[in-house]
This record gives sequence, C-alpha cells and structure tokens, in this order.
Amino acid sequence: MKLNRLSSLLLLCGAFAVQAGQSDPLSAWNDTAAKQAITRWVTNATDQQQATFIPQEKRHVVFDNDGTLWPEAPMTYQLQFAMDEIKRLAPEHPEWKADPIVAAVLNNDLKAVAKSGEKGLAKLVALTHSDMTTTEFAERVSRWVNSSKDPRFGCHYDQLGYLPMKQLLNYLRDNGFQTWIVSGGGVDFMRVMSEQMYGIPPQQVIGSFTLGEFALTGQGSEIRKTMNGAFFDDGKAKPAAIHLFMGQRPVGAFGNSDGDVPMLQYTSTNPDYHTFGLLVHHTDAKREYAYDSHPPASGKLIDGLTQAKARGWVVVDMKSDWNQVFDSALCQNAP
Amino acid sequence: MKLNRLSSLLLLCGAFAVQAGQSDPLSAWNDTAAKQAITRWVTNATDQQQATFIPQEKRHVVFDNDGTLWPEAPMTYQLQFAMDEIKRLAPEHPEWKADPIVAAVLNNDLKAVAKSGEKGLAKLVALTHSDMTTTEFAERVSRWVNSSKDPRFGCHYDQLGYLPMKQLLNYLRDNGFQTWIVSGGGVDFMRVMSEQMYGIPPQQVIGSFTLGEFALTGQGSEIRKTMNGAFFDDGKAKPAAIHLFMGQRPVGAFGNSDGDVPMLQYTSTNPDYHTFGLLVHHTDAKREYAYDSHPPASGKLIDGLTQAKARGWVVVDMKSDWNQVFDSALCQNAP
Repeated sequence: MKLNRLSSLLLLCGAFAVQAGQSDPLSAWNDTAAKQAITRWVTNATDQQQATFIPQEKRHVVFDNDGTLWPEAPMTYQLQFAMDEIKRLAPEHPEWKADPIVAAVLNNDLKAVAKSGEKGLAKLVALTHSDMTTTEFAERVSRWVNSSKDPRFGCHYDQLGYLPMKQLLNYLRDNGFQTWIVSGGGVDFMRVMSEQMYGIPPQQVIGSFTLGEFALTGQGSEIRKTMNGAFFDDGKAKPAAIHLFMGQRPVGAFGNSDGDVPMLQYTSTNPDYHTFGLLVHHTDAKREYAYDSHPPASGKLIDGLTQAKARGWVVVDMKSDWNQVFDSALCQNAP
Repeated sequence: MKLNRLSSLLLLCGAFAVQAGQSDPLSAWNDTAAKQAITRWVTNATDQQQATFIPQEKRHVVFDNDGTLWPEAPMTYQLQFAMDEIKRLAPEHPEWKADPIVAAVLNNDLKAVAKSGEKGLAKLVALTHSDMTTTEFAERVSRWVNSSKDPRFGCHYDQLGYLPMKQLLNYLRDNGFQTWIVSGGGVDFMRVMSEQMYGIPPQQVIGSFTLGEFALTGQGSEIRKTMNGAFFDDGKAKPAAIHLFMGQRPVGAFGNSDGDVPMLQYTSTNPDYHTFGLLVHHTDAKREYAYDSHPPASGKLIDGLTQAKARGWVVVDMKSDWNQVFDSALCQNAP
C-alpha cells in the first residue's frame, strides 16, 4: 500500500511539473490570448482527425527577422554592421572621405545617414557588402558579431534573439513545421547567424540579395559579391521571393511591420489550409522598445494593425504577452 | 529439426535475394566502375569512422535536369512545351502571326527557331511564360504534360525520367542526402513535376527565373509572372544560384553538359569535404540519343570530358553503365 501511495504521489508530482510549465515549450509567453491562439492552431494543424489538419510536407512557416526575431532599434543591426565596417575600413580608403554618406558615418551623424535615403544606403552597402568573396564577407560578419556589442543591452548581437520567438521556432519544428526566415536583411549577412541563433539552416533563409560571380582561383573557386541584380526583399517583394525560393504558399507568417503585411496576406489567403498570421507589436520601452508609427525604429506598424483586425491575425503585445524578452542564459544584463 | 532446416533455407534464400540484387537500390546500373565509384563515395561519406565522413546536414547534392534526369533531345522538353503552347494559343492571338519566331513555330520550322537564338527564345518565353498568374502557368504545364507525349518514346514527358538517376536520387536520400535540382530550365516549369517525378520538393528546385508580382485580388491574392529580372541559370550562373538559394557548397554534383561544368567545379573545390562529380555521357543512340559536340541536342560536352579527367569526375557511359534507361513500369514502349 505504501508503495502504491508513493507511486501516486510521484505521478501527481510529474503531472504538476508539466502543468507548472517546467517543460512548457513556450514558457517565455504569458498565458494570454496570443499564446492560446498559437497552441490552438498548432494542435489543430497536427491533428489528423480535424479538417484543419495540414500534411507535414506543407507545414512551411515564414518569419521576418528585424523586429520579429531580434531588435531593429535604434537601427537595424545590419546597418550598424555597415557603419562599423565603414569606420574600420576608412583608414585604408582615404578616397572614401569625399563621399557625404561616409563622412556622415565617420561623424556619427545618424540624422544625415537617415536623410541620405535609399541612395545613401545603397552606397553604404556597396562599400561594405560587395567586391569581395562570399567567404570573406562571412568572415567579416563573424568578426563583427564576436567583437561588438549592442550598446544598450551590453551583449553580442547574436545573443539578442527574442526568447519567446526562439521558443516558438522550436515548438513549431517539434510539431513538424519547416521554419524559414523571409527578411529585408541581406541573405549573406543573416546566414552567418541564422543556424546558431534560430536553428534555421542557410537554405531556409530568404533575404535581400545581389547576384554573385563565380570564378576559378589558383586554390579552388569562389563567388564574388557584386551589386548586380539587387533585390530588396521587403513589402510586396516578400511574397514574390517566397514563391521564387520556396515555390509554394506558407501556412503561417510572423512579422512586425507594414513591410511584412503582403507576406501575411499571401499566407492568409492560402486557399488550401487554415493559416496563421502574427505581428509582434513593440510596446515595451522598459525591456526593449515601444514604437509603431514613429522612431526609434524605422519599421512602421500602421496598416498591419488594421489588417490584423480584418484578417484575424494575432497581434502580440510584447509588454503583456511575453514574460521575458531576451534569453538570460545568453545575455545576463538584458531584461 | 525439420523446422530448423527450413528456417536455415529461408534465411539463405533471403540472403541470396539481397545478393542477387532484388533489393539493390541501383539495380538499373551495371556493376561497372561508375556504380562502384558512387557506392564507394556514399559508403565513405556516411561512415563516421572515416575521415571522409560528411555530417548529414552538409549532405547537399545538386542535379542538372535536362539531359541528366530526363532527355533534352531533339530539343528540351520546355522548348517543346513553349512551341506547343504557341500553337494552342495562336488562334486567340492573330497579332502574333507577324512575329517571325511565331511563324517559324507554326510552320514547324525548327531550323528557323534554332537560328532565332536567344532573342527568339526570349520572345517564345515571354509569350508562353509571362503575363499570367503562377497558378495558371502551373495549370498550363500540367495540362500539357497530361495531354502530350514524346513522339519517339510514345509516353508522357513526366514518365521519361531516367530510371538509373531516379534510383540514384532515392539511394542518396536513403543515405541522408538532401537532393536538389539546379537546371537551366524554368523553376516554375520544373516544380510542377519535380516532386512526383523525382521526389524533390519545390523548395529544392533551382532554375532560370523571372521576378513575380504580388497582388491582392477579390478572392485572395496571386503572383503574376513577368519578364522582369530574368536570370538564366546555366554555366557560371549555376554556382551563383546555388549560393543564392542554398547558401552553402554542395558535396556532390551531377550533370551532362559543359553548362554544368562550373557547378561541378564549385562542388569539387569544396574545401571541407570529399566531394563527388558525375557527368552523364549520351552514348546510346539505340535506347536514347548519342551526342556531345553536335546535334541532336543543344547541350555540348567537350570541356566537361577534359575536366572530368583532370578532376576525377565520373563519366557515365549511358550505353554500358545503364542496363535500363527508362522506367518500364511507367513507359512500356521505352527501352
């Protein structure tokens, strides 16, 4: 009898541990409507008895990166990389100084950088993202990630993926979903970190790109980065890129700005399956940032909030839906 | 005792069946040097005890399509599709007749079609591959595949995948390789058939492409095919496309023409792993076609044969290395 009672107790304890969230795959999410909507959709999508079932080979989900998986304020990390690279390389290139955008970067004049618009940005990209091999570029990104830190949070940039979203990626993969990044960020830039940060392999990263040039070398062969065929993967270009790279409609889409709206529209009008759309709303100035239609970040979320209501997308209120923003195991200082 | 002897006999029979090739995954390959090189490489790549071991997540292999997985003579099947579509649609487009390339197609003047070169081909592509939704295009390709047949072999085009290569794709996947198509063919064209024919899902098909345009419609949303940003995935463009779509170097590459040579070079100079390169040499006029530097096909194999010797690539002699070319279960007439 004693043994039986002990067994029952152990069983109870086990049940309690599960219920208490010790093994909750979404433990960084509060038990609010957002989390409930996610788990309901996944449960329905993976239940063969339901009409909402999605065959495993069709479970493709797409995630924006900047502002959805990691911060984009006060500027995107890739812009920070470009500016840091300009500063690092400028001494070797005295001819750069004559360029107003380079001068703005060297003077830390962020307003002038912002004002230079697409043309200025293209120049920054050309100086820091082209005319080198893809291998050399990846090394530069690695060196930058390992040597620089986000000034506010005091951690390396690859330690600042949002914990709730990383848990969500794992949870989806554990349920047979194939996770993809579809971002305005450069594809060669993101691929340096995507596997280690998010468990997303290079072939599932879609982003802005230019065409490379193949050449044989004495030692082997290389792809050189050029500025040819530049494709900016934002807004309406995102569904086009998804079609090009993935060749089918996703069943779930996750973003945070109006630039993600077409991707969510494309997904939620998938004629074959019950889909899921989610927008991360940056409402937490204390732990991260609060913005939508104004600085500190460039991303805007205006149309998205309207569309979300009409189309039934989940809007995550970062402040109330997430009990943790960053992973304290990676970045102790961060909230 | 009797039972024991029976058991032994059954066991023996089982072993014999395996040895006799009943379950040989490459049964359409003769036991020649080509097959031995394939199995040796796969065995070494999957043996953790060997220095030649390749981690499963790095086992990406790339296959050309036309002339490597299915025939490309007397013209590529996609060109046949374009010509058949011109004929089907011409009655609705009286204005087309003035175009010399359309006239050549309607008159079955293949010489004039060939003579029209890239410009003529681009016009054929524009008339049959753009200005419609991706869904409508896929429906057109499906209809064509289901309603037309290869005149020589008397079977639908999707029944004419080379059996030895289909077995090779399965064999590689069974050993943890991720199989990709990297072809000069149009990506939207190939994806209609790649999964059913070769077990290769849409997201692992790389090809020539143009950029689509996303639009909301009354019912949902669509991607319209345009001629913008045309990318021709052949020759040196193949390694560049592999980098763009896959984001890493393959460990194996399989082709049949000089247009595949850069892809094989890129693969065989992978600095991290023991790689494999293979070229299918069309030497079998009786069962398929015999060509390399001259008609009946447009693909040339001259430089590739030289490179194969220098770089240790396997050259498949279709006539002596394959005991079957097509799958008789799909196409009874074909050899």
